[in-house]
This record gives sequence, C-alpha cells and structure tokens, in this order.
Amino acid sequence: MSKFFSSKYDALTPYTPGEQPRDSQYIKLNTNESPYETSLKAVEYASKEALKLRLYSDPEVTDLVAKGADYFGVAKDEILFTNGSDEALNFALMAFCDNKTEAIFPDITYGFYPVICSLNNIKYTEKPLKEDLTIDLNDYMNTGKTVFLANPNAPTGIALTLNDVEKIIEGNPNNVVIVDEAYVDFGAESAVKLIHKYDNLLVVQTMSKSRSLAGGRLGFAIGCKELIQDLNTLKYSTNPYNVNRMTMAAGIGALEDDAYMKENCQKIIEVREYTAAELSALGFKMTDSKANFIFAKHDKISGEQLYMELKKRNILVRYFNKPRLTEYVRITIGTKEQMDALITQVKEILK
Amino acid sequence: MSKFFSSKYDALTPYTPGEQPRDSQYIKLNTNESPYETSLKAVEYASKEALKLRLYSDPEVTDLVAKGADYFGVAKDEILFTNGSDEALNFALMAFCDNKTEAIFPDITYGFYPVICSLNNIKYTEKPLKEDLTIDLNDYMNTGKTVFLANPNAPTGIALTLNDVEKIIEGNPNNVVIVDEAYVDFGAESAVKLIHKYDNLLVVQTMSKSRSLAGGRLGFAIGCKELIQDLNTLKYSTNPYNVNRMTMAAGIGALEDDAYMKENCQKIIEVREYTAAELSALGFKMTDSKANFIFAKHDKISGEQLYMELKKRNILVRYFNKPRLTEYVRITIGTKEQMDALITQVKEILK
Repeated sequence: MSKFFSSKYDALTPYTPGEQPRDSQYIKLNTNESPYETSLKAVEYASKEALKLRLYSDPEVTDLVAKGADYFGVAKDEILFTNGSDEALNFALMAFCDNKTEAIFPDITYGFYPVICSLNNIKYTEKPLKEDLTIDLNDYMNTGKTVFLANPNAPTGIALTLNDVEKIIEGNPNNVVIVDEAYVDFGAESAVKLIHKYDNLLVVQTMSKSRSLAGGRLGFAIGCKELIQDLNTLKYSTNPYNVNRMTMAAGIGALEDDAYMKENCQKIIEVREYTAAELSALGFKMTDSKANFIFAKHDKISGEQLYMELKKRNILVRYFNKPRLTEYVRITIGTKEQMDALITQVKEILK
Repeated sequence: MSKFFSSKYDALTPYTPGEQPRDSQYIKLNTNESPYETSLKAVEYASKEALKLRLYSDPEVTDLVAKGADYFGVAKDEILFTNGSDEALNFALMAFCDNKTEAIFPDITYGFYPVICSLNNIKYTEKPLKEDLTIDLNDYMNTGKTVFLANPNAPTGIALTLNDVEKIIEGNPNNVVIVDEAYVDFGAESAVKLIHKYDNLLVVQTMSKSRSLAGGRLGFAIGCKELIQDLNTLKYSTNPYNVNRMTMAAGIGALEDDAYMKENCQKIIEVREYTAAELSALGFKMTDSKANFIFAKHDKISGEQLYMELKKRNILVRYFNKPRLTEYVRITIGTKEQMDALITQVKEILK
C-alpha cells in the first residue's frame, strides 16, 4: 500500500479468484468453467472482428444489444452488456445503494457481494442461510434494502423456484432486487420473464459458464428501461467503451449458436446427476445443486484435506475457508471422463 | 432514471463519446483512431486466443505484464493493465482522491476527468490554461491535490517538456501526479523513465492510438510498486478478470511488433506537419500539436460550422461546445490521402 492510498479503503479485502494455473497439468474443476469449447461461430466472429481493432468498439453495443433483446424477448433499452457480470453487479450496487439504502444478501453466497459493498462503503446485512443451506424467504420481506439474490445460489447450487423469487420481488416494492443468474441455465428458472411486471427487478447473467465464454468477459443485465438507463449512466461515467469488439462479436455468435449451448447444458446436467449419485454411494452428502457444480462433504475428511489430496493427484476443486463451509468442497462439473477420474481418485483418498 | 437511482448521482453528467457511425460512408477523423491497421501479429495472437475462451483469463495478466515490464524497463509489479486507460484513470481517482484529497487539472483537458470526479463525489479544481492554451506551471506547485495531467494535452495537443513534467511531480511530493500519456508516442517525451525516482508518479498510457488497438480496449498504468498495488486492490474489488484473453494476446503482439508501431507514428507525425502547413496556408491558426490530431481555428468560420460543413461532405471531425473551444475543431491525422481530401473540402467550404 502506498502512503497516498485513501483511508476510505482501510477495511477493504479484495476478492480472491480461484486458482488459475498457467500449465495444463490439472483437471480443472475449480472455477465453474464449461468443459466444452466455445461455439465455433463465436470464435469465428471474434477472429473476424480482430481485423477491425484499430477502430473503437461501438459504445452503444448496438448489434449485440439487438441480438440479446431478440433472444430474451425484451426491448433494446431493457438490456445492458458489461465486461463480465461482475461489472454489472458493481454498477447495480453503485446505482441502488447508498448511505440511506443498504444491501442485503445471504451469509453464504457469491463472495464478491461483500467486496463491492466494502469498496463502495455500503453497509450490508448477511442473513444466515437455514441449517440445510436454503434461504428463509421471511428474511427477505420488506427489507428496506437492495437485495442481492444469487439463483441458483453459490457455492451451494440450491435454486429458489420462480414463485419464491417473485415473492421476494413483490416483498420489496420500494427496493431493487438483483437476481444474479450466473448458473441459471443448468436447471433453475430465470426471472427474466418477470421484468415487465416489476419495475424493481434486475436480472444479471453471464456468458462465462453455459456459453463457454469465461475468457471473453461478457455479462449482461436485464430490467425495465429505467433501471437499465441508470446502469448506462454509470457505464458512461466509468468506461464508455466497456465491451471490446471481439467480445461483442463472440457474444453475438454464442447467442446465435443456441442449440449448442442447450446441448452442452443438458450434458452437464446429466453428468452432474451421475456424479452426485456416485459420490452419494461413497458416503458424500450434497446440496441439491441446479448449477454446473456440486457442493459436497464427507464425514471422514474435511473440505481442505480433500482439496489438498485431490490437488496432489492433479485435480483442482475449490475449498472455502469460511465458517459453515469448511466441511465442503465445490466441484465443477466437467466431462464424464473427468468426473470418472475424480471419482477414482476420491475412492483412493477415502480408502 | 428510475426512482431507485441513488441521489448521490444527482449532479452527474456522463461522458459523451465522439460519434461512432456504424456505416463507412465517412472519412473518420473524429476520435483519434490510427489510420493504420492493427499489427498482424496482434491480430494473429488474438485470433489464436479466441480458441481458448472457455477458460477464464489470467487475473494476474502474467504474460502481458512480463512483456510490458520488459518493454518499458520496469519491474513486473510496477505495471498494471486495464480495460482501456479510462479504467486506469478511474482506479487512480478512486485510490488517490477522497473528501480530504481533491483533484486538480486544467480547465481544458480530457473531458473524462470531471466525469469520474463527479461519479466518485470528489471535488476538483479546474485551472484555466493560459491565453495560448498552454499550462501555467505555477498553478501546479504544492497543490495539496491529486494532479491529472494529460501530456500531450487534449484537445490542444500541446506537450510539456519532460523537465516541466518533472517540476510538477517534484512540486507535489505529498500527492500523486497522474501523467496521462494517451498521445505520447506522437512526439512528446514519456515520464515512464522517472518512476524509479518519484514515488508519487503514475503514468497512464493506452494502446488505442499509436498501437491501433482502440477496439481491443487495453490501457495500462506504470508507477512504483506501492501505487500499482493500490490500483490492483481496486481491480480485485471491482473486476478481477478485467482484461479478456483476446485483448491480452493482442497487447503482447502489439508490443512485439514495435517497429511497425514506430513506423506508423512517424508517418502520422509527417502527415500532421504536412496538414498543419496546408491549413496554415489557408489561414488556420493551430496549437503546436504533438499528438495524432490538429486543433485548428479560422477567423471566417466557427468550429461548429466547419464541423457541420465537413460532415455534409462525409468527413467527420470533432467539435466541442465548451467555453474557449467553440472556435476550434479537432482533426485526427489520417493517411495523407485522407488529409488531402479534407484540405480539398476545407478549400471548398472557405470559398
């Protein structure tokens, strides 16, 4: 830290990304990437656009906005694209929280929420999940706060029904409810269809997981035009050209190649259920995950131990050194072959 | 604006980017892009990387940081890459300004500085440039504020000598001086060589202009390791994966293809001097620009009129509706053929 760094960040602890090893010795099941390659159409469009890099990208992201609006059945002024969904989440927090309006989210959820609160000097309440790691709906009624709701939740993978999500939106008519649907394509129901019914609903999604575009950095927010306009005001005040040309093109390709995405998600869901059954047979307890990962614990080994033993065997999973989570590991769903390799190693470790 | 938008932004006016027409009918001399295509090496590297988009980009940007450190002769912990240099400027403002430390910059400079001040609720002082649009060094001694200094300045193109920049750095030992060198490769002297001498110097550059990468979005900051660490703290708290894989690869290619960049800059400098001489012969008055643009005015026509007349003739330049600037247009330096077309049209307009 320099002597010039503002004291307003004294309490700030930055987010720690999962390990990103730079060699390929590992079976990488630690950051919820897709095991399937990016759509060839997305790759082709991005490569073609690389020839036009001398010109600025379109700050209005016109072509991708049109494609996304069409895909999700919303108007062009109801969708905004960002440099990864983290940027959309940060814009939402900046827009809808201040010293009068605090934030609220579960104690166990995406670890980025408390970081952006701390960064922006926003007070927040963490509501404990129930013993079974599900959300108590009563905690989110008339909160008077901006609600951040990951659905499915991370790292548990547990999804609320759309009906329950709607209760939370209805229960906070004077506050914005941000539904973070990073993992929605793996078995939960999206709240996008509710955006014309509620002016306080903002849905955030990413192309990182289900569309195999983690390295392209492309997220988006969908909501009524007034909410999207607010986020655009912040975008034009921090980074008017936030989405580069190649990523914009890749996003268009990925949305056009929808059948490929759906096929990949279906495979991931099947491999998830297969892996869960196998791990269950080995004595693991798991949450009911609707995401592209499994959150599992075993009586005989702590999360940290299992993480370390697997790493020795060239398999990376994620372990959280946080209260209530230390028993678990989060395992990204890879290909069936990768999960079989995992199961084989887990059997060895438990011997 | 939604009813949920925080009142902290009541006074915020977002930045307005220059026109980005989506057809190619115009000779585009309005946003300081390079007329020369991106390095083929950069394009090739980016295209190759598009095949790896399913995996997250490296949050530490390791390979590009190594390449950039080597290129600029600094250590790896003395350089940080960002999603365009606007992100670096915003991080710097967030890091080094607060309610105790305000910002200071000229009244005529990059229009993004007051926007990010307003966004972050930072008070700022705008010091009037002298009558000839140069900086009065006395205005920047012992300011007690964080200094933003575009060198060359925009939209005037006027550069301070490195000696004068150093005086400002020395004159503010208790504050950070951010030297924004977006246009430095077109004839000014970089302050990068001073970063080991001063712990309060942060140099910000972009690959948009001299390296023909505007559409790739890649900026960077160079300073002592403590300053860079502060910016990294903010990066990991807003957008840990801020630089995508393709842009990272393009940046490496662009730095490797240094001779191509230098050759392009030399051509732009020559065409700038040629254009300035031609416009001067037509009665234009110009600042002494060391950037890839010319800032020109003519007794017989206002900036706005000239802008509109040129637009009718399919040539886009930039006009600023701001006190002291209304007489001028800013004309990006294109190829010699483009500038000849401009000169021909200007002659027609002045007839």
